[in-house]
Amino acid sequence: MSTFFSSQLKNLAPYTPGEQPQDQQYVKLNTNESPYPPSAGVIAALNDKEAADLRLYSDPECKELKKALAGYYGVEPENIYVGNGSDEALNFAFLSYATDGRGVAFADITYGFYPVFADLYHIPVQIVPLKSDFSIAPKDYYGLNKTIVIANPNAPTGLALSRDEMEGIIKANPDSVVVVDEAYVDFGAESCVELTKIYPNLLVVQTYSKSRSMAGARLGYAIGNAELIRDLETVKFSTNPYNVNRLTLRAGVQAIAEQDYYTENCKKIMATRAYTKEKLEALGFTVLDSRSNFLFAMKPGTDGGAIYRGLKERGVLVRHFDKDPIRDYNRITIGTPEQMDIFLKKLEELL
Amino acid sequence: MSTFFSSQLKNLAPYTPGEQPQDQQYVKLNTNESPYPPSAGVIAALNDKEAADLRLYSDPECKELKKALAGYYGVEPENIYVGNGSDEALNFAFLSYATDGRGVAFADITYGFYPVFADLYHIPVQIVPLKSDFSIAPKDYYGLNKTIVIANPNAPTGLALSRDEMEGIIKANPDSVVVVDEAYVDFGAESCVELTKIYPNLLVVQTYSKSRSMAGARLGYAIGNAELIRDLETVKFSTNPYNVNRLTLRAGVQAIAEQDYYTENCKKIMATRAYTKEKLEALGFTVLDSRSNFLFAMKPGTDGGAIYRGLKERGVLVRHFDKDPIRDYNRITIGTPEQMDIFLKKLEELL
Repeated sequence: MSTFFSSQLKNLAPYTPGEQPQDQQYVKLNTNESPYPPSAGVIAALNDKEAADLRLYSDPECKELKKALAGYYGVEPENIYVGNGSDEALNFAFLSYATDGRGVAFADITYGFYPVFADLYHIPVQIVPLKSDFSIAPKDYYGLNKTIVIANPNAPTGLALSRDEMEGIIKANPDSVVVVDEAYVDFGAESCVELTKIYPNLLVVQTYSKSRSMAGARLGYAIGNAELIRDLETVKFSTNPYNVNRLTLRAGVQAIAEQDYYTENCKKIMATRAYTKEKLEALGFTVLDSRSNFLFAMKPGTDGGAIYRGLKERGVLVRHFDKDPIRDYNRITIGTPEQMDIFLKKLEELL
Repeated sequence: MSTFFSSQLKNLAPYTPGEQPQDQQYVKLNTNESPYPPSAGVIAALNDKEAADLRLYSDPECKELKKALAGYYGVEPENIYVGNGSDEALNFAFLSYATDGRGVAFADITYGFYPVFADLYHIPVQIVPLKSDFSIAPKDYYGLNKTIVIANPNAPTGLALSRDEMEGIIKANPDSVVVVDEAYVDFGAESCVELTKIYPNLLVVQTYSKSRSMAGARLGYAIGNAELIRDLETVKFSTNPYNVNRLTLRAGVQAIAEQDYYTENCKKIMATRAYTKEKLEALGFTVLDSRSNFLFAMKPGTDGGAIYRGLKERGVLVRHFDKDPIRDYNRITIGTPEQMDIFLKKLEELL
């Protein structure tokens, strides 16, 4: 830290992303990327003509992409915010809806970035503990009078609330924004997008990083009431109007046109997830009922950190969070069936 | 604005980017883009293999690009911050170095985003007026005891201070960070990058958007003392660790390998600038001595807004700032010689 660093930020503890070894020699099951490439049309769309046009700025209003997403989700373009990854949308939601003293509430075990955003903006935090089975009790969030952030499905557990349960939370907090982070929703959970037409306090955040195989393109979006979206646009145009690059906007539009491919991939990943869960259970693991593209698993009596390290030595990367009460668990991204067989084989060797 | 929008932000007046008509039917001389495409290697680098790899996250540490930039500028990778456009680096500099009450100082006529960042973070602002010839008086910035932000060359004037003049300002503010925004430095001004090795309070911000023909790729960087850079990294890892997409990182590395192409383009643009300036002066315009890829020009007795509108009607976009004391001027990006001849022809028609 320099002597010039703002006293407002001196105690900031940044987020730690999963390891991103650039040599790519690992079976990489640690950051919930898709094992499948983007669709053929997306790859074809990023051609020489588009690359030559990089000399021009991207459209700061992201008009084409908003139109494509609006068509797909049955909302209007004014209901959509487009961001440089969903982290940006989440960042702006914290800044927009929780910096006026009302504070924010989220689970004790959830996406590790929420406490960082709260810290960055000095937002008072109410931690809502999960139940002992790692599930969320919806009623714990009723009438909190705080901005509420819920990952649904939750990470790293993979457990999901139903749309009805989410609606209960949204209805019980009419004076606060409820942010539903649906990064993993396409792998078998129920989305709240439809509810944005009813509830002006609901903001749904989604991403191209998981089900649409574009983690490296950095593309996320939020769907909500037009007024909420305007707030996020105000923040965007006050920080980085050209927040999404041209090629990513182009890829984003094309992916919507090929949604069937991505839906099919999700089905494959869900099938591989079921297969992997069964195998893990046969090896004595406790595996949560995931609605995401990862499994959260532990073997009673076995050190989670040791499993993580042992797998890494054997060329398989999974994600381990070295903190209570999830220290015994590992989060395992669902790859191809072949990758999961390697993972299972290395795991068996290790045990 | 929604009823949920933070009271901290309710009066925020966002930045207004230059018009970005997506139909591209204009001779577009309004946002200082390069008229030349990225180098052949950059276009070739954005190939199907890279597009397929978009399923993977980008390297949050931007190691390869930092190495390439460090090699080119004769500094170490630890001296380089890589951002989603230079706007992001500027944003983080305001947040990092001016939010602890010390305030920020910048010119009355300069990049219009500085007051927006200050507003966003509630940073007290000291406005330092330009001289009547639109130049910066270095001594006005001596001993201010505030974070100082200077665009050099300045925008929209195009005027530049020498490196020695900048060094005077940096030396005279040892307890404050001096941010030098060198977005346009490659078109004939002196860079302060060398001075980052001497002064721990100097942060130089540059971009790929202008001289490297990659406005649409969103890539900027900051060069400074390793401790200053660590501050920016702390903010980045607390907001958006994967801030730059994979293809842009790849393009950024390749562009450095082909720097000669870009240097040649800068020379062409400077020659076209000299040609255009001469022609404008022959038409009775007053034209500032630009060290950038644009000209700032006015014709005494002629309404600057009328020139902007008249050119737009004739298919040529320039940028007009409708505020005192620059209302009479227009900022004209330097395009190809052919584009400038169209601009000059339409201008003559108009006058």
